[in-house]
Amino acid sequence: MKRIYMDNNATTRVREEVVNTMIPYYAEHYGNPSSIHYFGQKSRAVIDDARIVMARFISADDPQNIVFTSGGTESDNFAIKGFAMANSKRGKHIITSSIEHHAVFNTCEYLRKNFGYSVTYIPVDRNGVVDIKKLETALSEDTILVSIMHANNETGVIQPIKSIGKMLKNKNIAFHTDAVQTAGKVRIDVDDLGVDLLSISAHKFYGPKGVGMLYIRKGLTIDALLHGGHHESNYRAGTENVPCIAGMSAAAQIAMREYTLECSRISLLREKFETGILERIPQSEINGIHAERLYNTSSIAFKYVEGEALLLAMDNESTGIAASSGSACTAGSSEPSHVLTAMGVEPLIAQGTIRFSFGHDNTEEEVDYLLDTLPRVVEKLRTMSPLWRQ
Amino acid sequence: MKRIYMDNNATTRVREEVVNTMIPYYAEHYGNPSSIHYFGQKSRAVIDDARIVMARFISADDPQNIVFTSGGTESDNFAIKGFAMANSKRGKHIITSSIEHHAVFNTCEYLRKNFGYSVTYIPVDRNGVVDIKKLETALSEDTILVSIMHANNETGVIQPIKSIGKMLKNKNIAFHTDAVQTAGKVRIDVDDLGVDLLSISAHKFYGPKGVGMLYIRKGLTIDALLHGGHHESNYRAGTENVPCIAGMSAAAQIAMREYTLECSRISLLREKFETGILERIPQSEINGIHAERLYNTSSIAFKYVEGEALLLAMDNESTGIAASSGSACTAGSSEPSHVLTAMGVEPLIAQGTIRFSFGHDNTEEEVDYLLDTLPRVVEKLRTMSPLWRQ
Repeated sequence: MKRIYMDNNATTRVREEVVNTMIPYYAEHYGNPSSIHYFGQKSRAVIDDARIVMARFISADDPQNIVFTSGGTESDNFAIKGFAMANSKRGKHIITSSIEHHAVFNTCEYLRKNFGYSVTYIPVDRNGVVDIKKLETALSEDTILVSIMHANNETGVIQPIKSIGKMLKNKNIAFHTDAVQTAGKVRIDVDDLGVDLLSISAHKFYGPKGVGMLYIRKGLTIDALLHGGHHESNYRAGTENVPCIAGMSAAAQIAMREYTLECSRISLLREKFETGILERIPQSEINGIHAERLYNTSSIAFKYVEGEALLLAMDNESTGIAASSGSACTAGSSEPSHVLTAMGVEPLIAQGTIRFSFGHDNTEEEVDYLLDTLPRVVEKLRTMSPLWRQ
Repeated sequence: MKRIYMDNNATTRVREEVVNTMIPYYAEHYGNPSSIHYFGQKSRAVIDDARIVMARFISADDPQNIVFTSGGTESDNFAIKGFAMANSKRGKHIITSSIEHHAVFNTCEYLRKNFGYSVTYIPVDRNGVVDIKKLETALSEDTILVSIMHANNETGVIQPIKSIGKMLKNKNIAFHTDAVQTAGKVRIDVDDLGVDLLSISAHKFYGPKGVGMLYIRKGLTIDALLHGGHHESNYRAGTENVPCIAGMSAAAQIAMREYTLECSRISLLREKFETGILERIPQSEINGIHAERLYNTSSIAFKYVEGEALLLAMDNESTGIAASSGSACTAGSSEPSHVLTAMGVEPLIAQGTIRFSFGHDNTEEEVDYLLDTLPRVVEKLRTMSPLWRQ
């Protein structure tokens, strides 16, 4: 049977071009970039080239401001702990939002519980947009770092990073953004956004798992998260993951080439999908509908349906649709999504929410199939629900 | 031209079988293991299987004691910081040795300089073996953690881990070993060694870069190093690097199958190499010769030769031999090796030391070539040295 993958915000299929780029670095050009001999220098050249590509990917002036990591979570931990630890003498107050990924949220909580930092969580409005006025009010003499995600992983809602960047300018407060969901989907310009630290993960844009990067603005003081050898200009110890770094670079190049095409094609698919669902499934609504959203993400609440049950029904042999009830990182948890809760979505509706995230491989045929299939699946579950009275 | 790779302690060529195991997990089975749908569960099964293999690889009872990481450096940082932070109320004294890898050394220094831990560095004897009596004397009420490497990366000298493990038994002191250089070369049994924490990196035994693991003995209290989602039983957040984890597992399976064969074959090659070098090159000696050493490592001091110059001469187009002057992680540094210095090797001899590390691909033909070529290269450099009076 054919299965339909609608969970591209969780992870993506690595593009063939990317895999083909990576393979030679396993068994052919396998040197350690730190080695001064021929084999080492071949690998060194690969990551030097990748660093130039990744700088261009986020419009950073200097490739030296790119530090390769093992992924988005490490980048977020590195940015927040590294900056907080290195600047604790200036202050110990961190501002973030109530809808961050757990890699930011739990990192802030770790600092709060164990190292005496204070953390303010800025709320969002009904559309899932961070309240910039409340953020401004929360700033204090003690504030050293603000971390707000570029776009939310569950709803796709894009945050006012540029406005926050402007507001923080010349305030001697570092600004970090988790751009894991936007990188590869929209053009990023760190100067235009006004950010000092920016996290990226390759496997969200058709690159491999296990690699990411952190942009660190020149002049910023930050502690390493991984100590050891002098890799990555002393910012991040550990033998560089050459094949995956080459893979991330290849994925970034494809993204830069296809931004316009992907955006227009996937936007049309999502438009058809969302319109069709709202028409065919009563008592359904789109979370964050009035906000600016990533063109690939649909967070849809099906009232009177239990989300996990719907996911399983969608996933079964005869239906074959893979989607998510929230972020993959919290799958299995039975608590309602902290993102939807922060948006003021009632628990009953939050629990009936499914995230559909489109990607490069999705087709119009698949959308037709979804529109044909989902109403029946939802209907069936609702007839079993004691709360359902249409 | 054919180049000869004699730097297998820096990194290894990934075995074809390993690469072939990994490839399907990039573009075919690419789900996020945290996703509850079909694609996610396929990936979940892969890492569950790998965890069973990796537990067997180190003779651990329970696969749940294996935590996948991004490599040896992360494993060392995680073990030391994670344990030290979680147990600081019991004490803040850490004991390690003067010959550890920088991933251990610099991590301890970070804790010492920034978080008030005290660190004792146990010296080694002339053969590079940690002085176990001095280690015992250094133990105090405040000691919570001992970290001693299994075998040294520069000299191959194997440390008395089992004896230290016995000595620490029932002392309520955690025992960590960096087994990055031994894993895949010799059978490891965490219970026999008496260790509580053990670090491994895949790319040192023909697996991919960017993946490793930390063994954590059941019942040990340890903080996560990477905070975020509930991955790896809350020990290590971040989407699991499925292809590389599958690759590490494949490499471990090959190693377990070939321990005896590899050991006997490579031991013979090294024996021929070392005997030949000592015969043909006057004023050369083997560091750690009287200690138990890994069968693949030769650390050879060529007196009256500058190591870096020799490396470059060996590496050039017409010679084509890749070796190392120390660990790849400190290459480019002009300081004499901290390992050789700790062994009491005079700076002049330390600076003339080259590490040759054999691996799966090396042949007897290559050893013949080395024995034919190296005497001439060394001779040539010596004739240019003002210190050389044979």
